[in-house]
Amino acid sequence: MAKSTGKKNAFYAQSGGVTAVINASACGVIETARANKHKIGKVLAGRNGIIGALTEDLIDTSKESARAIAALRHTPSGAFGSCRYKLKSLEANRREYERLIEVFEAHNIGYFFYNGGGDSADTCLKVSELAEKMGYPIQAIHVPKTVDNDLPITDNCPGFGSVAKYIAVSTREASFDVASMAKTSTKIFVLEVMGRHAGWIAAAGGLAADEDCDLPIVILFPEVEFDQKAFLATVEKKVKKYGYCSIVVSEGCHWPDGKFLAEQGTRDAFGHAQLGGAAPVVANMIKDALGYKFHWAVADYLQRAARHIASKSDVDQAYELGKAAVKLALSGKNSVMPTVVRKSSKPYKWTIGEAPLAKVANVEKMMPKNFITKDGFGITPKCREYLTPLIKGEDYPPYGKDGMPKYVILKNAPVKRKLGDFEIQ
Amino acid sequence: MAKSTGKKNAFYAQSGGVTAVINASACGVIETARANKHKIGKVLAGRNGIIGALTEDLIDTSKESARAIAALRHTPSGAFGSCRYKLKSLEANRREYERLIEVFEAHNIGYFFYNGGGDSADTCLKVSELAEKMGYPIQAIHVPKTVDNDLPITDNCPGFGSVAKYIAVSTREASFDVASMAKTSTKIFVLEVMGRHAGWIAAAGGLAADEDCDLPIVILFPEVEFDQKAFLATVEKKVKKYGYCSIVVSEGCHWPDGKFLAEQGTRDAFGHAQLGGAAPVVANMIKDALGYKFHWAVADYLQRAARHIASKSDVDQAYELGKAAVKLALSGKNSVMPTVVRKSSKPYKWTIGEAPLAKVANVEKMMPKNFITKDGFGITPKCREYLTPLIKGEDYPPYGKDGMPKYVILKNAPVKRKLGDFEIQ
Repeated sequence: MAKSTGKKNAFYAQSGGVTAVINASACGVIETARANKHKIGKVLAGRNGIIGALTEDLIDTSKESARAIAALRHTPSGAFGSCRYKLKSLEANRREYERLIEVFEAHNIGYFFYNGGGDSADTCLKVSELAEKMGYPIQAIHVPKTVDNDLPITDNCPGFGSVAKYIAVSTREASFDVASMAKTSTKIFVLEVMGRHAGWIAAAGGLAADEDCDLPIVILFPEVEFDQKAFLATVEKKVKKYGYCSIVVSEGCHWPDGKFLAEQGTRDAFGHAQLGGAAPVVANMIKDALGYKFHWAVADYLQRAARHIASKSDVDQAYELGKAAVKLALSGKNSVMPTVVRKSSKPYKWTIGEAPLAKVANVEKMMPKNFITKDGFGITPKCREYLTPLIKGEDYPPYGKDGMPKYVILKNAPVKRKLGDFEIQ
Repeated sequence: MAKSTGKKNAFYAQSGGVTAVINASACGVIETARANKHKIGKVLAGRNGIIGALTEDLIDTSKESARAIAALRHTPSGAFGSCRYKLKSLEANRREYERLIEVFEAHNIGYFFYNGGGDSADTCLKVSELAEKMGYPIQAIHVPKTVDNDLPITDNCPGFGSVAKYIAVSTREASFDVASMAKTSTKIFVLEVMGRHAGWIAAAGGLAADEDCDLPIVILFPEVEFDQKAFLATVEKKVKKYGYCSIVVSEGCHWPDGKFLAEQGTRDAFGHAQLGGAAPVVANMIKDALGYKFHWAVADYLQRAARHIASKSDVDQAYELGKAAVKLALSGKNSVMPTVVRKSSKPYKWTIGEAPLAKVANVEKMMPKNFITKDGFGITPKCREYLTPLIKGEDYPPYGKDGMPKYVILKNAPVKRKLGDFEIQ
């Protein structure tokens, strides 16, 4: 395979579930690449993530104005499209990896920036290894992103802080609401949040209450087997003391036998399995046992898309990690991921570190046991100390005269194709 | 009955479902009363709304600092507690009205400020009429509040603009999210919003898209009988054009026979009626017919409590209406409600007017037919012109160093009781 010479282009793609700040990382990558034009050519983005690379469906980001790229910093979602597509192992589908390298070579790509979670770190690593073997080396840098906060080594993942802020603020607001209504009406408010395996997001609900704002919050973590009796007793105690109670339930909350609460055997008129989530199950359980009137909400995409209440820490880190990815590439690094290194919590100080992809790929960071209170329904001071800096600061998007946030929709101009079709299997 | 002499105290209470800005009206009432100390004594608030007046459970707001009262302007929910308690007709329960007047007389109350919707306007009117007859006249002023935006005469109701902004912004954000995921994963996002009878809140979802931000939004209004075939065809068309579709469904969306979509016959394992809302029903209906992967959210209390994304128009008007209520009282008015009068939409100009309670009580303002597009799934330019000014401007609450909004919890010191017990029937 002939090596291309001179300045190489960069490839950037977004992977998996998007977040309020993944575009801030894209902004960091593209702006930093543009600032180093003497070393890096164009940044070509994959349309709909890695699918875009496989099908040679590339976007020429050089067609976007500096202003449009800057606006990515305050625009939620994945501006180039993301995908849920995990490359198989090298053994199972070497064809796909070879195709990636073929596309990279055709477009003179020397830098591979992949913005995602654990799976994409693994892809990133494999691409780098295979490219080396095939004699077309690529510097593969992974940019961390996941609302689930489950990547190892990095202190936290961009995307999580903003979800955490949304959940903490919303739980506080809804708790104030139900407190007002409790005397004659609603006494229970249940909010369902994301996090099927790890309770990081549910834990953020605990930030709604603090020493200056005494609110009764009960959290149902996926890490804790659901104990109905203890739960109902806790809720009853809170209602007796405060007049009401808010419950934050993770979608991953499950019974001792592993069955999700959301799978409570609910059937629709056609006999289809349950439609609802964990929140209505929990709310009805309380109503049946204790008779309290309830309201429930399911935040779903609203929580991870809520750029309007993003955490400044989160936005800053997402941008800086994108920037650091390019700097790592320029300094000759390969198969690494820039990380957030916490220097201190009070005051919050952090810096950028790096981790080898071999240590990141396919490792899931769970919430430490000592972050959950002994009764299983709350967060410990240690957890609060960890979480608080991550929701610190507000970073509002600009708004138009019409009262709406100005989020950018890019032109996403296609790059002319050079190769034949490729069928995704 | 002996008339009290000299300076009279004021009574203030919050009624029905609370909002992000009802406390801004409380702030307007209390600050304006404090600024007129030579004419108005203390402002005594009803703990948990009118229940507090009936049971002589009053709060002495003079014990709160100026700073705490000022903080009400940016605190969601009802700071003194609200209630869902509708006084019966004078004929059916004259005893309650007489008790109110007895309590007002015992605490030298000459002003009755009642902050609520249509029912409380009616209560306000009756209290004023009966007090007159009983020889203890009260100046009864109603302060409008309702997220449902269904009070007559006033151009809009405080509380609605902020819900509308939350729904418009959230729908835009979630649409950006689903657009990113649509290629390989979620193609449908369904958001369920409040509004059992009127589609004002659902209509706000239509603001998510505009000429600068082309998003496929389908709205299901309570005013339009649900037409499954037309709905599915519309969704399919949008997905074919855009790759995805967002649906905003009112909780009041119903079939031609009047049955709510949310009552789709869902049963849990114990045979209890449905747990879920309209959103999962709509989402599953699309999945069954068209096969698209979906996500759904139910905003519930989050939408009306979301002070963090309140509309500045809304906060300003809530405050000014509270202030105007006191000014109306000071100018000798009785049985009236201050209103918002729209002078122009572009630019948005409004002023405060007034309406006699006899014309407000028990009248529900529905959404005009020409606000809904002919196909029944969108909003017209007329509707957009009406709604846009109401979500105009941002009015962020202050945040602490911990990244959380600083909402105030008042001391709510009780007023010493002077009367015997009263049993609510």
